[in-house]
Amino acid sequence: MSDTGVTVKKAENFSDWYVEVIMKAGFADYAPVKGCMIIREDAYAVWEKIQSAFDARIKSTGHRNVYFPLFIPESLLKKEAEHFAGFTPEVAWISQGGDTELEEKVAVRPTSETIMYATFAKWIRSWRDLPVKINQWCNIVRWETKSTRLFLRTREFLWQEGHTAHATQEQAEEEVLYALSEYRNIMENYLAIPVIPGKKSDSEKFAGALYTTTLEAMMPDGKALQMGTSHNLGQNFAKVFDVKYIGEDKQDHLVWQTSWGISTRLLGAMVMVHGDDKGLVIPPKVAPTQVVIVPILFKSAEVEAIIAKAKEIAETLKAKGFTVILDDRQEYTPGWKFNQWELKGVPVRVEIGPRDLKQGQVVMVRRDTGQKNPVKEADIPAAAEMLLDEIQKNLFAKAKAFMQQNTYTVQTYDEFKRVLCEKGGFLKASWCGSSDCEAKIKEETGATIRVLPFDKEETKSGCVHCGEPAKDIVYFARSY
Amino acid sequence: MSDTGVTVKKAENFSDWYVEVIMKAGFADYAPVKGCMIIREDAYAVWEKIQSAFDARIKSTGHRNVYFPLFIPESLLKKEAEHFAGFTPEVAWISQGGDTELEEKVAVRPTSETIMYATFAKWIRSWRDLPVKINQWCNIVRWETKSTRLFLRTREFLWQEGHTAHATQEQAEEEVLYALSEYRNIMENYLAIPVIPGKKSDSEKFAGALYTTTLEAMMPDGKALQMGTSHNLGQNFAKVFDVKYIGEDKQDHLVWQTSWGISTRLLGAMVMVHGDDKGLVIPPKVAPTQVVIVPILFKSAEVEAIIAKAKEIAETLKAKGFTVILDDRQEYTPGWKFNQWELKGVPVRVEIGPRDLKQGQVVMVRRDTGQKNPVKEADIPAAAEMLLDEIQKNLFAKAKAFMQQNTYTVQTYDEFKRVLCEKGGFLKASWCGSSDCEAKIKEETGATIRVLPFDKEETKSGCVHCGEPAKDIVYFARSY
Repeated sequence: MSDTGVTVKKAENFSDWYVEVIMKAGFADYAPVKGCMIIREDAYAVWEKIQSAFDARIKSTGHRNVYFPLFIPESLLKKEAEHFAGFTPEVAWISQGGDTELEEKVAVRPTSETIMYATFAKWIRSWRDLPVKINQWCNIVRWETKSTRLFLRTREFLWQEGHTAHATQEQAEEEVLYALSEYRNIMENYLAIPVIPGKKSDSEKFAGALYTTTLEAMMPDGKALQMGTSHNLGQNFAKVFDVKYIGEDKQDHLVWQTSWGISTRLLGAMVMVHGDDKGLVIPPKVAPTQVVIVPILFKSAEVEAIIAKAKEIAETLKAKGFTVILDDRQEYTPGWKFNQWELKGVPVRVEIGPRDLKQGQVVMVRRDTGQKNPVKEADIPAAAEMLLDEIQKNLFAKAKAFMQQNTYTVQTYDEFKRVLCEKGGFLKASWCGSSDCEAKIKEETGATIRVLPFDKEETKSGCVHCGEPAKDIVYFARSY
Repeated sequence: MSDTGVTVKKAENFSDWYVEVIMKAGFADYAPVKGCMIIREDAYAVWEKIQSAFDARIKSTGHRNVYFPLFIPESLLKKEAEHFAGFTPEVAWISQGGDTELEEKVAVRPTSETIMYATFAKWIRSWRDLPVKINQWCNIVRWETKSTRLFLRTREFLWQEGHTAHATQEQAEEEVLYALSEYRNIMENYLAIPVIPGKKSDSEKFAGALYTTTLEAMMPDGKALQMGTSHNLGQNFAKVFDVKYIGEDKQDHLVWQTSWGISTRLLGAMVMVHGDDKGLVIPPKVAPTQVVIVPILFKSAEVEAIIAKAKEIAETLKAKGFTVILDDRQEYTPGWKFNQWELKGVPVRVEIGPRDLKQGQVVMVRRDTGQKNPVKEADIPAAAEMLLDEIQKNLFAKAKAFMQQNTYTVQTYDEFKRVLCEKGGFLKASWCGSSDCEAKIKEETGATIRVLPFDKEETKSGCVHCGEPAKDIVYFARSY
């Protein structure tokens, strides 16, 4: 059992539990290269579901996929000074190809603004060429020096990066919010993770952006996880890379740009938020397998009939569009299989034994609650659909309730420190808008401003740190 | 016109024509980093069609996608000596992360056998864990020192790499041929490019393989292009990486392995084989846009009615599953649009003008032959389907006829040299099986053995080079 079951309790040692669940479920693995990971079959399948849902949405609004090189010459990466300063501490550099030392070292992309926009300058001539709306699914390298963590912080990860250029500032603003809304759809409606949408403070924004919008989620240890960001780049990069167009007015104009990304970090969030002491719990809409059928075989006389019925049910469910595994392996016991599929987080289990066969029914078991229900054979597809739908909703509702229960409004700095220390979670507090206060709070408590929510509340007190008139009520938290 | 139209004739300067077509059609672009390229929207969309067709096939036979790190420690890459020797001349090395020099330099993956199989050794314990059948879609880096060429030879490219481990040699052999058959399906039935399946000679096989199977296509200049390969790795890597399983017999056994890959090189083959002096010709089954509708607008009175009808036709075709663009931009003339969509290789153009509107018809134009046909409105979907199907078949038939016409059986070495020099193409010749003869032919003529075809013919004469008894009739050609 200790070889396959989860031995650490989520509530007791969250961090060890996280690693154990991922490793034992075969969801990911450490790689034989430091700071990197292997995204295994089930995790990659969840990523593919995210990809296909998001990709279809952005394609329907005119975005198209492309692929730009992994390598960026140093001279290009340096062009936007703030951007370079932000990324250079963690850039991996190629200095040798075969036996030859390179003349100019090249960076392994930490993000693709510079190489893309150097090219936009060539592609964009007139207003007829706008907007440019492209996206790429690729790997990204950031040579982390902090300790790494599966999915959340690794030296290489997978992401999509959307990059757009527009004729007007308004169009760029609209695009920033559009991308954020599509991200929110994936996070809330697919991954069942509630998020707080809003802006980043200046000190937390993307290096080179005018401003950054974000979606922040709460992990079960009360820490915040930045789930995805969408940046308004203004004309910062357009100036540096000379991305201009001739308008209908025959004049030269700089374009307005946006960029936005979500990454395989989302898989880590999904594990953290929904997993339990039995293993992963995967939301039905992104589950690689939605239903597992486990025939319960005692006497050899009935084995054939039960397997035949199980196959029939599997085919019926597959034909209705469900993803199904029939686990008819004879070398494992039903109990072992139950544990195994619970560990892997399959949302619905269908058990069929000799008595079920006789009564023309099966037993359906929910992964999220463990609830068991007998279901008549004819009702299986409808019951599966209903259960999957309920599980999807329940996971979201539970996560949302948890976030709400662990979000505290605090008035004074003493209260801020006390609540952060005793309870953790999100602290809603008034803030004067000064980077100084923000920096001091971070230094003194470890909490940063996660988000200036779009959903504004009226400030009733002064800045939680300095007492000066407050501009916003913002979310503070410790974060990943 | 010279800004947008193709100025070089395919028959006159094939190599310049290739670059011009790709650049002007916006299919790809040179990148601001040496030896790399940008895969643009339409090309990436073709790649996505290849991906989704191939991915569905291999998933249906139990293969699953994963993602392994981009980076491979030098010590790991070195483990299989023949493999390392084969790849080391073109490996790109990371030596610096941020400001820190790395202790052990890491390779950017030139292929993933070593990192994957080091992990297989951990994953595979018993016969129950076999077969392992995984695949990954990723980028690959080979630091070419030869001059690069869009799609065909670049320092980075995209590919899929399948990797499997089996209990028996027979299963591995079956898998090698299975992958090759799926590749052939993509090449012939999707990209409309005929291929010759067979084995590579020992000197052309994958570094570290027992043997390599290949699919070779003929380009319009008579040169061969290796379209995809599938390797039987035997137990070579299993020995080095200690990939063992405990059998049902309770004994330790080494696994039998395969690996196989196709890459974005296929996009270059597609451009070469089907393109013409007007631009790209994209086979309907992989075309990003299958039908473009161009309304022909003269008098303002009819503009609205024509555009309304064009939209209606577009919606009807989309509802039937065709990919359609309605080009109703008013800032371009119909003639300009015809050229533009021909350049981009859209298989079918639908023209609708005032007279068509009155007669309840459209004109359909085939990209491959230029043939125009009036089609009654009600018949448009059926006509489109038939035309696309005909174009798909015609492209394949033309390419196949070209390959056959340019394949010559030669008996003597004089004839070999004369035909190669005067005509090029594929030379079928008897070969004694010696690497010496093979090397000398390469040195003296530039032609290599492309493939020992599965479809064997009886040798009637001695080796084309040494006259000794021949083992096989093989295909020689100059190649990309």
